[in-house]
Amino acid sequence: LRGVTPNVSTSYQDQLSATMGQLGEACGMAGHAIQRATQALLQADLELAESVILSQTDIAATSSRAEEKAFVLLGLQAPGAGNLRAIVSAIQIVGDVERMGALASHVAKIARQRHPQHAVPEQLNGYVADMGALAAALASGAGDVLLSRDPRRAAQIRHDGDVMDELHRQLLSVLIDRGCTHRVAAGIDIVLLGGFYGRFADHAVQIARRVIFQATSRYEYPPVSRPGCDSG
Amino acid sequence: LRGVTPNVSTSYQDQLSATMGQLGEACGMAGHAIQRATQALLQADLELAESVILSQTDIAATSSRAEEKAFVLLGLQAPGAGNLRAIVSAIQIVGDVERMGALASHVAKIARQRHPQHAVPEQLNGYVADMGALAAALASGAGDVLLSRDPRRAAQIRHDGDVMDELHRQLLSVLIDRGCTHRVAAGIDIVLLGGFYGRFADHAVQIARRVIFQATSRYEYPPVSRPGCDSG
Repeated sequence: LRGVTPNVSTSYQDQLSATMGQLGEACGMAGHAIQRATQALLQADLELAESVILSQTDIAATSSRAEEKAFVLLGLQAPGAGNLRAIVSAIQIVGDVERMGALASHVAKIARQRHPQHAVPEQLNGYVADMGALAAALASGAGDVLLSRDPRRAAQIRHDGDVMDELHRQLLSVLIDRGCTHRVAAGIDIVLLGGFYGRFADHAVQIARRVIFQATSRYEYPPVSRPGCDSG
Repeated sequence: LRGVTPNVSTSYQDQLSATMGQLGEACGMAGHAIQRATQALLQADLELAESVILSQTDIAATSSRAEEKAFVLLGLQAPGAGNLRAIVSAIQIVGDVERMGALASHVAKIARQRHPQHAVPEQLNGYVADMGALAAALASGAGDVLLSRDPRRAAQIRHDGDVMDELHRQLLSVLIDRGCTHRVAAGIDIVLLGGFYGRFADHAVQIARRVIFQATSRYEYPPVSRPGCDSG
């Protein structure tokens, strides 16, 4: 905690921004991890899977440093209601980012467990690849929102979270419809994998939601105005 | 926020205890909700399902009141590192309890959606009943831990969380092994339900973990010493 001798009038905002920046970095690391975990899964690449599993510690360490910064801010003096909420949001976001890192690691562990077999039956590869790409985009988007606090970007993330739900349902539908052709173990892997990607997306959406709450004191997103997009 | 004129020397502990008590109450409500949601599901009871869905608001309101109390404590004055951690933990627990209420409501919504059909094929009733009973016990246990801060009780909750993981795996295994006999929609419902119970359990385990962190500053459980119990 060396070097923490803030000028009270500006330090909260500056240090809070630094904390959010560090969380954004951790979020980007989680996005990179889920992207590589998906690659490890689809290519049955053991070395890559191991490297994703190890990277969970780095993500947790980066977000823990952000948490420490937030606690220092919280302890400095009574920071006023708005700043309190913002600092507590930052601490809550730490939890989301850490879970994202853990979920990327869960995906990689399934790749490791089934190696040298492929965990995903070939006819489901496309769904898993789409979910992995969307999860990585969501993490990257949540990282952007942490830096920009842009409500429209946050609304986009929520929309993409709904797309993930739809992909997840499609995956399960195809799995169960053609379930008889797969090994039971493969079926369970797919169900678990679907859950990991889905929850990864939930955390990214939750991060965006918390940032918007910091900016507006409302847990609501502005509407996404895009053709062909369901609201709900 | 009337009546908040604390005696500084004792008020943090007293008011923190009151906050934890209110969270314990919300946790008990979530346990009651998942128990009734399971009953609505297994008996295709629409009225009961509707009542569980409505109760989500009450659970959220109770935990929000606890959150407001925690923010008041946080804003009063620099509360010292130990108290800061405890208050932030309480705010994080609010999120867990609210998710538990939402997950119970998700279970009830599946019952409502399939009514007057039964969402769960008869041969899977036993697994779902077991998961529902365990989820209710976990919520009740997490509520106890919020009041008692007993690390051994918390360790028991972690163990029961592992039992839930095992039940979840069994449910998926039976579903996929016999998947060909069910409608696709029923299969998806079961997969989603399994995820809801599993995540409900995760949040209960997380609450216990946070309370133990408050008490010991370590995110670790003491070992559970029970015959036939895997550690891990």
